[in-house]
Amino acid sequence: MKGVAQPPILNPYITRKKRRAYSVAEYVEGILRGDMVLLSRAVTLIESTNPDHYAQAQQVIEKCLPYASKSIRLGITGVPGAGKSSLIEKIGLHITGQNRKLAVLAIDPSSERTKGSILGDKTRMEMLSRSENAFIRPSPSAGSLGGVARKTRETIVLCEAAGFDTIIVETVGVGQSETAVHSMVDFFLLLQLAGTGDELQGMKRGIMEMADGIAINKSDGENMNRAQAARVMFQNALRLFPAPESGFLPEVLNCSATENTGIAEIWEMIMRYTEFTRQNGFFEKNRSAQANYLMYSTIDEKLYNQFYQNEQVQILLKQYEERIKNHQISSFVAAQEVLQFYFKG
Amino acid sequence: MKGVAQPPILNPYITRKKRRAYSVAEYVEGILRGDMVLLSRAVTLIESTNPDHYAQAQQVIEKCLPYASKSIRLGITGVPGAGKSSLIEKIGLHITGQNRKLAVLAIDPSSERTKGSILGDKTRMEMLSRSENAFIRPSPSAGSLGGVARKTRETIVLCEAAGFDTIIVETVGVGQSETAVHSMVDFFLLLQLAGTGDELQGMKRGIMEMADGIAINKSDGENMNRAQAARVMFQNALRLFPAPESGFLPEVLNCSATENTGIAEIWEMIMRYTEFTRQNGFFEKNRSAQANYLMYSTIDEKLYNQFYQNEQVQILLKQYEERIKNHQISSFVAAQEVLQFYFKG
Repeated sequence: MKGVAQPPILNPYITRKKRRAYSVAEYVEGILRGDMVLLSRAVTLIESTNPDHYAQAQQVIEKCLPYASKSIRLGITGVPGAGKSSLIEKIGLHITGQNRKLAVLAIDPSSERTKGSILGDKTRMEMLSRSENAFIRPSPSAGSLGGVARKTRETIVLCEAAGFDTIIVETVGVGQSETAVHSMVDFFLLLQLAGTGDELQGMKRGIMEMADGIAINKSDGENMNRAQAARVMFQNALRLFPAPESGFLPEVLNCSATENTGIAEIWEMIMRYTEFTRQNGFFEKNRSAQANYLMYSTIDEKLYNQFYQNEQVQILLKQYEERIKNHQISSFVAAQEVLQFYFKG
Repeated sequence: MKGVAQPPILNPYITRKKRRAYSVAEYVEGILRGDMVLLSRAVTLIESTNPDHYAQAQQVIEKCLPYASKSIRLGITGVPGAGKSSLIEKIGLHITGQNRKLAVLAIDPSSERTKGSILGDKTRMEMLSRSENAFIRPSPSAGSLGGVARKTRETIVLCEAAGFDTIIVETVGVGQSETAVHSMVDFFLLLQLAGTGDELQGMKRGIMEMADGIAINKSDGENMNRAQAARVMFQNALRLFPAPESGFLPEVLNCSATENTGIAEIWEMIMRYTEFTRQNGFFEKNRSAQANYLMYSTIDEKLYNQFYQNEQVQILLKQYEERIKNHQISSFVAAQEVLQFYFKG
């Protein structure tokens, strides 16, 4: 057997080539030239819980920052079953057909439970996911809403630097996720189901007031009459609120993702809004305000977490809650004493 | 002239007798026996900016705490001109006639400008202010909303210890004052003007959702038809919101403070609410939650104030805002750097 070359042993545990690690410069260069693989890898860095990855991601983001902010950012919310994915697919096909480049992101604090949302999203947006002009990325599946929102904002920066001129951030009505999405987009669309008869009942506080527009999905077939009645009802309900700061009066439209009707009209509404707010200066003003808000809310979150995650503080707070309940101490004195303890420690 | 007694020289600067200083025990004893003069003096201590007074007030409050919490606390809000004072007077006369003891307090962050609100309040509630069963105290005229709210809560404790079984806290729709009042009362009444035709237009976000009941004032004379239409409109608008946690569906009533109509009905609604929420446990649950909320919000306020009132932090934040605006740094990195500076210092 001597002299005969041995075939290499196929060890499945070592043959799977380790993914090449890229440098910050390589990431930035790749993203700026629109390389989808490098964009995707960089987003994975953002989502990583490894501190080294996180640090590298921050450097990539800082370098991409000057090339970002040139897109339209659109938020879409609606209860599960309202047809958000179908509508996003139809809007996506409509605008990628106009040669726009679309990135679809999501903030779904509930996705921790399912984990499989990447498959879900891509399956539900099957046509769109095949388009070269579309980048679909599911919600990061771990972390607090604050953390997920931060990752989504950072992903927006990378997508914009990679040339995506339209960003859609999808969310479901869980917790404060709508507020988080609202604070990172230019236009916030509320998707409603028609014909259930109690459209307004299940609505969470404040959601309608955040909407720059409302689309009533499943406005088709036998639903049509009820959908049109719902449209009038929503329009009346919107009048209950003060005029929005943008100066743009929210519109209510009927649409059907299934029958592909009303889609162009939704996009036209968004374009009208964008043009209007660019002219009156609200568009830029709102973006600056969002960026400042983000700095301040990050500071607040960290100040707050550092205090409330302190284990001794937690024990103390429980004890004071009990004493307050029994009318043994006022809330103010309790607060003072806990803070005194914290700042001494 | 020798031997003739000289009349004392009347020096106005020394003859005005210095008010006697009471001890904590004297204050507490006086308040518990319902002494209005001592109650009034103790409230002045609460409102004082002198740290010694503040410290003494805290001791009095702590001692009164076990005797407080046995009242009904009612919040009333409405735009200036809605007729809050007139309505409070009429409700006040109605219930003091039933042998209830009523304390009327106010949170009005705008009162800093006028200062004369004590005269204003007492003049506007002329009949009520003559009643032995009523204690009317205007809004403290200085300080932040947080500070004013704290003082009002502390005053509630003293009033309750002095035997006042009904507390009304009045506020106008300035800033976050409604939220502050809502978080310290059992029942929150929104007073609306009828017949202006745009009742819902000027309404601030979220106020209607906080209301446990709505009263439409000036439902009289030529206004009557419009007032009844307004009532239906408000009832429909209330249906847009999710069912309140109390389980009590907010009612909308017509009333006229001028003609003294609908007053008993408002009080009956409040009694219905109280009975209902006492039975389903919400009343006590809400009070405990409010007390905890107060401890936590005091802590949060102090944590934030300490940070944001730091002068170097303020300078730094301005610089970072500029850099964010010019896309030179991300909001997250800016937040990190400011916090690093703060915690190093």
